[in-house]
Amino acid sequence: AAWALPGAPRPCCGEGKPRTGRPQKRGRGQGRLVPGCVHPHPAHCVGAEGRRVINAEKSEFNEDQATCCQISIRRRELGLEEDKEWLILCSTQFLTGYYWALFDGHGGPSAAVIASNYLHYCIKQKLEEVAGAITEARPPMHVSGRCVCDSDPQFVEEKHIRVEDMVVGALENAFQECDEVIGQEMEATGQTGGCTALAALYLQGKLYVANAGDSRAILVLKDTIVPMSCEFTPETERQRLQHLAFLFPKLLDGEFTRFEFPRRLKGDDVGQKVLYRDYFMEGWGYKLVEKADLKYPLVHGHGKQARLLGTLAVSRGLGDHQLKVIDTNIEVKPFLSCIPKVNVFDFALHDIKENDVLIMATDGLWDILCNKEVAHMARSFLAENRTDPHRFSELAKCLVRRARGKKIGHQWMLDDSREASYDDISVFVVPLHNRDEDC
Amino acid sequence: AAWALPGAPRPCCGEGKPRTGRPQKRGRGQGRLVPGCVHPHPAHCVGAEGRRVINAEKSEFNEDQATCCQISIRRRELGLEEDKEWLILCSTQFLTGYYWALFDGHGGPSAAVIASNYLHYCIKQKLEEVAGAITEARPPMHVSGRCVCDSDPQFVEEKHIRVEDMVVGALENAFQECDEVIGQEMEATGQTGGCTALAALYLQGKLYVANAGDSRAILVLKDTIVPMSCEFTPETERQRLQHLAFLFPKLLDGEFTRFEFPRRLKGDDVGQKVLYRDYFMEGWGYKLVEKADLKYPLVHGHGKQARLLGTLAVSRGLGDHQLKVIDTNIEVKPFLSCIPKVNVFDFALHDIKENDVLIMATDGLWDILCNKEVAHMARSFLAENRTDPHRFSELAKCLVRRARGKKIGHQWMLDDSREASYDDISVFVVPLHNRDEDC
Repeated sequence: AAWALPGAPRPCCGEGKPRTGRPQKRGRGQGRLVPGCVHPHPAHCVGAEGRRVINAEKSEFNEDQATCCQISIRRRELGLEEDKEWLILCSTQFLTGYYWALFDGHGGPSAAVIASNYLHYCIKQKLEEVAGAITEARPPMHVSGRCVCDSDPQFVEEKHIRVEDMVVGALENAFQECDEVIGQEMEATGQTGGCTALAALYLQGKLYVANAGDSRAILVLKDTIVPMSCEFTPETERQRLQHLAFLFPKLLDGEFTRFEFPRRLKGDDVGQKVLYRDYFMEGWGYKLVEKADLKYPLVHGHGKQARLLGTLAVSRGLGDHQLKVIDTNIEVKPFLSCIPKVNVFDFALHDIKENDVLIMATDGLWDILCNKEVAHMARSFLAENRTDPHRFSELAKCLVRRARGKKIGHQWMLDDSREASYDDISVFVVPLHNRDEDC
Repeated sequence: AAWALPGAPRPCCGEGKPRTGRPQKRGRGQGRLVPGCVHPHPAHCVGAEGRRVINAEKSEFNEDQATCCQISIRRRELGLEEDKEWLILCSTQFLTGYYWALFDGHGGPSAAVIASNYLHYCIKQKLEEVAGAITEARPPMHVSGRCVCDSDPQFVEEKHIRVEDMVVGALENAFQECDEVIGQEMEATGQTGGCTALAALYLQGKLYVANAGDSRAILVLKDTIVPMSCEFTPETERQRLQHLAFLFPKLLDGEFTRFEFPRRLKGDDVGQKVLYRDYFMEGWGYKLVEKADLKYPLVHGHGKQARLLGTLAVSRGLGDHQLKVIDTNIEVKPFLSCIPKVNVFDFALHDIKENDVLIMATDGLWDILCNKEVAHMARSFLAENRTDPHRFSELAKCLVRRARGKKIGHQWMLDDSREASYDDISVFVVPLHNRDEDC
């Protein structure tokens, strides 16, 4: 099953505390592309189009969730009480942001559903806390704007603190708060699981992409591809994970070894010197194998098979507060980070062309297609369909279809007869031209 | 005072365990450039030329130390006992590396002196431990080359483990071992202090640059500058330092705050919301100031004034095992890392021209001159002095002189009437053309 966002613009979401939703069951068709919105809350934005396919019809629930919406940021006057809120509503002191986010759940869709309902609300809150600062040329030392020390503006300038740093800080704090809320909500309702989170925010002429997990966002411009995120997996974060295990060996409860080896060691390796890496090594060395090295490694496997504590394929994301390694008391959460890496793209520094787009997708797409292939498809598709008002939406559909492949017998196959993606696939294609007029 | 390495080649150092040396007193001249070798051990290599100036005549001892030498790597056969060592000596299984290193001491020259005498020995040892692997096309799973598991070569290939990763691992392990030895040696002899370490190793057609501290190495090629190191300071490593303080708050003993603020806070700031960053933030936010935030910050100050625990200007290096924050029981060492970041440059992938050079220097040079200025000076000086056999040595001298400036009254001034470097300045200029014939 796949879905499309309705074309009509709606002004806003993220006002008031959202409820958590229930995941929708997937469509029952054989690989049909069925349009329809999976979200129980308003989530629409002109110019953003998404498509997805659920586990190539293999699972009951879609673990991918998506949100797109406007975020209206009110300027909170310091000391203004709640009952004077109508004053703010009347004011013209509004900033409007545009938000797209993908959440790839694991261990069930619950965390992804809560995150898709809640993260934009956290972001809105955190942006409102710094709204006074981000409408200035440079953020003031005190949010009130009052100077305690005459040279405060100089201190801020010396540290090169810019408006965009406040937005980055707000996104980092929002992810952390959202993770806490997910933990509370899931404990209260007895739900389990976690999700990755990839969020894009367009605000004041800049695009912010915050990523915690293995989804990916790229800008496909006329002459270049700009990666806007990097993946956080047990492999890419090996050193952080190993270092934590070195600092707190109890976290492994004697069941795992923090050392990395090219393969799981066995009895015959004891007494031999084998290739290994410890937390401080980017290079490799040889280690004399002891019996303790035969334990299961903290990070094990390679590529898509890489696992943290034999359990998780990602090292950052939201949720998983209760997750334990199967048949043990070992908690996975201490090793997970909910903090995103935020990348910023300043449109003022680039000449954006008609067919330039932001493409966001969960790993289901990127496991099958590399950046170059996606960029090539995007450029040729958009050039061939210049007059189609739905061409961005059609491109998203086209990308999903390509990664899902075709069902031949019992298998899903790609055109080049490689096996297709068996994962959920979600794609956003966001046009970048005429942003401010469109939004 | 400044020094020059003698021009005549000497084959090797780093054989046998070196003794630790005593620092030499600086020359007494008023800014004279006095050639002479400061090293109590042989440290010479054809084609590498160094010059330095000691604190612009301000301090008793030079805290900068330097070493350059050949490193001969014997292949140790597994199970070969010590008394059969003559067999190895007779063998042709030798690898020769070329080594240049700069050490910038603080709190006295002792750590820098020990490191300059010992690091190349550690590197030699660690390289010999993997010598069997680095002469193969791909490192074997077992150092013995024996296969415990038939698909071992595949596992190694899947992990993309290359010969250069073994050299990187050897360098990382060598720094760590050298740091341990410095700790033991200095405790035994009642000496104190620490040093940065920047080491370059040319081996098997590749240049490895390992850096722990704020020295810098760049390649100045005909059309481009290749940075071969990055600096590790309390500012560049803020997040690592703050994270450690978050994980182990006791390390701050209630005397410091881990939060970063644009300036030291004061009583008037309490109750206000001021700009801050925590360990997980690359961006900035506002924090409601409490009394505890008035404590001295873990990382404080900006640029050259930035300090870790109000004490150290670098966050990586060797030594400082005994260092405590003045008037407290707070140890600095837990926050320091002795692990270098290693960058690799493969000469096989580049067409090296006659005037291409590696330039290594302590922060005394880079505080005054940026990469571009140094590259410009190098290119024009070497082009103008093409026939001078000492031109690389003269260029090193020239760079030192430029950063030291001229004494005008009581001040050392640059040509553009900025204040000159008051720090020690050490520079290596290493020609890259015809490497294998020269060495």
